[in-house]
Amino acid sequence: MSVKVSVVMGSDSDLPVMSASLKALERFGLPFEVQILSAHRLPEETADFARNAAGRGLQVIIAGAGGAAHLAGIIAALTPLPVIAVPLSSSPIGGTDALYAMVQMPRGIPVATVAVDGAYNAGILAAQIIGVHEPAVREKIISFKKELAEKVREKNERLQKTGYRDYKPGEIEV
Amino acid sequence: MSVKVSVVMGSDSDLPVMSASLKALERFGLPFEVQILSAHRLPEETADFARNAAGRGLQVIIAGAGGAAHLAGIIAALTPLPVIAVPLSSSPIGGTDALYAMVQMPRGIPVATVAVDGAYNAGILAAQIIGVHEPAVREKIISFKKELAEKVREKNERLQKTGYRDYKPGEIEV
Amino acid sequence: MSVKVSVVMGSDSDLPVMSASLKALERFGLPFEVQILSAHRLPEETADFARNAAGRGLQVIIAGAGGAAHLAGIIAALTPLPVIAVPLSSSPIGGTDALYAMVQMPRGIPVATVAVDGAYNAGILAAQIIGVHEPAVREKIISFKKELAEKVREKNERLQKTGYRDYKPGEIEV
Amino acid sequence: MSVKVSVVMGSDSDLPVMSASLKALERFGLPFEVQILSAHRLPEETADFARNAAGRGLQVIIAGAGGAAHLAGIIAALTPLPVIAVPLSSSPIGGTDALYAMVQMPRGIPVATVAVDGAYNAGILAAQIIGVHEPAVREKIISFKKELAEKVREKNERLQKTGYRDYKPGEIEV
Amino acid sequence: MSVKVSVVMGSDSDLPVMSASLKALERFGLPFEVQILSAHRLPEETADFARNAAGRGLQVIIAGAGGAAHLAGIIAALTPLPVIAVPLSSSPIGGTDALYAMVQMPRGIPVATVAVDGAYNAGILAAQIIGVHEPAVREKIISFKKELAEKVREKNERLQKTGYRDYKPGEIEV
Amino acid sequence: MSVKVSVVMGSDSDLPVMSASLKALERFGLPFEVQILSAHRLPEETADFARNAAGRGLQVIIAGAGGAAHLAGIIAALTPLPVIAVPLSSSPIGGTDALYAMVQMPRGIPVATVAVDGAYNAGILAAQIIGVHEPAVREKIISFKKELAEKVREKNERLQKTGYRDYKPGEIEV
Amino acid sequence: MSVKVSVVMGSDSDLPVMSASLKALERFGLPFEVQILSAHRLPEETADFARNAAGRGLQVIIAGAGGAAHLAGIIAALTPLPVIAVPLSSSPIGGTDALYAMVQMPRGIPVATVAVDGAYNAGILAAQIIGVHEPAVREKIISFKKELAEKVREKNERLQKTGYRDYKPGEIEV
Amino acid sequence: MSVKVSVVMGSDSDLPVMSASLKALERFGLPFEVQILSAHRLPEETADFARNAAGRGLQVIIAGAGGAAHLAGIIAALTPLPVIAVPLSSSPIGGTDALYAMVQMPRGIPVATVAVDGAYNAGILAAQIIGVHEPAVREKIISFKKELAEKVREKNERLQKTGYRDYKPGEIEV
Repeated sequence: MSVKVSVVMGSDSDLPVMSASLKALERFGLPFEVQILSAHRLPEETADFARNAAGRGLQVIIAGAGGAAHLAGIIAALTPLPVIAVPLSSSPIGGTDALYAMVQMPRGIPVATVAVDGAYNAGILAAQIIGVHEPAVREKIISFKKELAEKVREKNERLQKTGYRDYKPGEIEV
Repeated sequence: MSVKVSVVMGSDSDLPVMSASLKALERFGLPFEVQILSAHRLPEETADFARNAAGRGLQVIIAGAGGAAHLAGIIAALTPLPVIAVPLSSSPIGGTDALYAMVQMPRGIPVATVAVDGAYNAGILAAQIIGVHEPAVREKIISFKKELAEKVREKNERLQKTGYRDYKPGEIEV
Repeated sequence: MSVKVSVVMGSDSDLPVMSASLKALERFGLPFEVQILSAHRLPEETADFARNAAGRGLQVIIAGAGGAAHLAGIIAALTPLPVIAVPLSSSPIGGTDALYAMVQMPRGIPVATVAVDGAYNAGILAAQIIGVHEPAVREKIISFKKELAEKVREKNERLQKTGYRDYKPGEIEV
Repeated sequence: MSVKVSVVMGSDSDLPVMSASLKALERFGLPFEVQILSAHRLPEETADFARNAAGRGLQVIIAGAGGAAHLAGIIAALTPLPVIAVPLSSSPIGGTDALYAMVQMPRGIPVATVAVDGAYNAGILAAQIIGVHEPAVREKIISFKKELAEKVREKNERLQKTGYRDYKPGEIEV
Repeated sequence: MSVKVSVVMGSDSDLPVMSASLKALERFGLPFEVQILSAHRLPEETADFARNAAGRGLQVIIAGAGGAAHLAGIIAALTPLPVIAVPLSSSPIGGTDALYAMVQMPRGIPVATVAVDGAYNAGILAAQIIGVHEPAVREKIISFKKELAEKVREKNERLQKTGYRDYKPGEIEV
Repeated sequence: MSVKVSVVMGSDSDLPVMSASLKALERFGLPFEVQILSAHRLPEETADFARNAAGRGLQVIIAGAGGAAHLAGIIAALTPLPVIAVPLSSSPIGGTDALYAMVQMPRGIPVATVAVDGAYNAGILAAQIIGVHEPAVREKIISFKKELAEKVREKNERLQKTGYRDYKPGEIEV
Repeated sequence: MSVKVSVVMGSDSDLPVMSASLKALERFGLPFEVQILSAHRLPEETADFARNAAGRGLQVIIAGAGGAAHLAGIIAALTPLPVIAVPLSSSPIGGTDALYAMVQMPRGIPVATVAVDGAYNAGILAAQIIGVHEPAVREKIISFKKELAEKVREKNERLQKTGYRDYKPGEIEV
Repeated sequence: MSVKVSVVMGSDSDLPVMSASLKALERFGLPFEVQILSAHRLPEETADFARNAAGRGLQVIIAGAGGAAHLAGIIAALTPLPVIAVPLSSSPIGGTDALYAMVQMPRGIPVATVAVDGAYNAGILAAQIIGVHEPAVREKIISFKKELAEKVREKNERLQKTGYRDYKPGEIEV
């Protein structure tokens, strides 16, 4: 099955955070690729990547970067595809810099920004976008939400049984 | 043609900013509706709206709100559709509050946040999302980007001709 | 004795901080319950909880959440009870996001916000609210304040005796 | 009927914003008083006010101040009553200073903070607190919420009728 | 004389602020050009501009932009020339966004950031950079500093004569 | 009587705000001088001023500046006198920049920072410092505080008489 | 010798940071006392302390607190003495809250704020204030500055000798 | 070969971060010196350093400091050379303070500010400035950019080979 989502990041040191996007995409059965690109260090390939993205059949791009995070915006300038931006907290300023550098895009070229270090949610959002026209993917989003709710319910039930003094957070993975 | 995008806002005082979303949707020929809803003042209808959105054939929801802006997140909790969040600068804190209250969504329920007061870009992003599967809409995005570039080129040419002392910004609408 | 205060939180990972609310409520002899709810992951139950809270005889609700913290506001929208909001510092932005997402509620639907991670104070505030009409609870607030003052006095006396070089902070629990 | 809520503020220049609290209290039929006090300029009277508040039969105190806003906290230190804090945007820093100076109270002495310039909500919150034990006040909160919802519904209906281009915000007062 | 400094900006609405750079360059006798470019709206020309800048004999580039200000960084990625970044206060966030989006560049690709709206200083900095090897330009910097000091001295003398009550600021242009 | 307090500022455009320091000093009968100096534009004179300040019999220096406000710190480096810093809100960032640039002085060289645009308070603080050893000045501080309290009392009395609807703020100058 | 400086703090957990003030006062030979007080937990004693401070012969008060740091302002309201405020970084917000809660004092009641956690500088500033009229203390400030300069010189000389690769910071205590 | 770049810092505790500037200068073959200076603790030598810098043949100055970081600005006031400012994250406020204290320089005296803790980039920027007139240095910048791109390419290739689950960031030094 051809790749639908490309997950790109500005540095390989971003991979431990950004791999959550990949896990989310696996969860929703969406074929993906992952690339280390850089608006600053590899501008030509990044521009080529953006220009070719739609033609290669990609449907959504997820871009994660920290600091003066230009990667998502630069790609969005060169593709008609929706670009999801993940601001990373990797700089001493701690993520507000990447958030502002991503979300405050000028009139004409939006990116879809998620939370600081919110790579998992970027993967879900990609699935929601693809699910607009693919009922099978939308069904998976619906199931995911049900499962998410069920897990919180289970946790709450455990909390009621054990009492708050003995409850251990994180015992059930959501 | 059935409505594809619903633009909702927390207060009618948000309409002057949020109407830019509507203008963008008109630009891309996407049928839309506009609603005043409120996660806080009209929680039941807002929840009903969100639960019914996909079933009504909506494809994307745009939600604008200021302050402790919960509208986008509350809708996202109850729909598998992608939700675009527009943080508004209407409170004394000036938009950072709405930005944080929208973009920092928890793991599991993303919203696609655009710039503070970035209502026009929210409309473009909706078109990009719909364009993932509708080639005609994607073509309009591509044309829009070309036109945008052309307008900047024209402005630059005018600037070269008139010189910076005589140039009047905003003469050519983009 | 029927439950008077419900302490809810958006994730079980919030329990280590939020359990301070429970300890404060124990301190003031107020019967309480604790629930994991979520405006985003469990929206239906959260709405049901809010709608039923007053009817169940609850008097005050304490809601703790981090990031785009909607829990307190969403509950406040659906209950006439006072809702105390505890913004948590659990996101990379460190608590300012949850503070803004809670305190900046729109005209019509207030929440009573306490300090970032201020779960203990939320319990005290609940007691103060209940103490408005229950003299026995108010007396406990008065005693608590006296005890608090006494503990600081004791600490100061110890400091005067030992001198600042040998004083060990935290030796007397307040 | 004896005064139940005292609204105090640090400067008479705060009155235009703080009078919204008084209007809310009138809306809920709660007898109130209004005082200009100051933790810094009138510390003795402010302390006396706080010490005597409960004995005078007051049930809730609302305190509004800007800048290094100490008024709410200083009163809270000397009364077992719940104190609602309204941070004002009157300084060049624009309200974040007053918000921090109010909401970040230390363990032991909470204040119930509402939005920057959120004086109307402070009045509602006072009514909610009093409504915990006074069913007639709680009923007024419930009616208020219904009316609030109804007004938003009316606005939305008007918007549907007039269309977004001709709609004039603020025509119906909420 | 061939152009030494290119002043580029993301939108023609930035010209009223950015023209101060041009005035500074005129002050130091440095031949310049001015262009409206855009990392987002005109990415190809912007990349071409950057790639060709050194070959055209340019020595310094000044780039002004607001919001998610990528212009300086994107140019810096494609040229060995020093790039001076002017963050503009044109967005609702007011300049902190552009400052972070410019100054927080990643390891490997610096830009030389000046103050928010500090376009005049960008022109001076360009002159200082060119003055490293051109004694005539350096001399102009030295003269400028002397003149600047002299103007402050004159202002101070006037203040001493008129007294602070009658002094009118801004009477002597610096 | 010889000058005891020197009020310096970085630009004559700061005079409208900084003149409040002068008015406060007049209020306390302290002989003063006022100077336009600049750590950046007039560094030599500023250093000379600082080095000579104590020898000239000055007792306190008040320095006001905006943006990267170095004036107070640079003077403090060269004098054993206490230096009071007034951060000004004159830059697009609005005063937080000047506040940080003044208050965050390194170990060894403090400045006494007052509120953003708090020039009047700087004058009072100068009087408090001089009042440490001059009983007549201290008496004036005590009288000032009494008068301040009296004015607030008068305002409050007026408010009680007129009622909040008819009260006009600012009628009595403090 | 009678106590000249009183160092007070809001909690004994502040002592590890605040003890730097005491070390500075020892360095300048100024007799001091240290007290744990609290505007919120011990308001009566704190007010008594402030009212009696001048009468007891104190000359300067240093007050350290974190979060909604009211201690310095509350004391300043009740004494004509200069009060030095040390904002502490002890809350999750990390010091900006305490800084704003201290420095932004209203017209009429200044405090002299130093850096976040700047307790050592508070001690130096106290000495500078006392040195206004006590030549022996001023001489110690002058010596301290010379010694400080000398230590930096020594460090620099060591750096020149060892080279930057082998230099170990912190070897010489300043 | 005579020294072209001087790297100065406000404290020897800044050396571990600032040594990255030295490594960058070594990378570009630029002779440098390193000095511990201080606008506050060593103001006379710092002023002498700045006044003599151009005459000694220096071409660029790099100044790193934290907190109320005045070092770069103070040097810039006294030299016609370009000054690169490195704001350090060493204070409890974490670098925003140093950033504001450096970048917000007043009209007339710019500094070229790089990222918080961006010492390596300061070295590159110095090379870019010198490269304006020295083709050999410019060539090294061009080579550096190529190498940087090549390293990212290699990393990306490794990532494609190993897959994201087995990839170990940081294996190839850039």
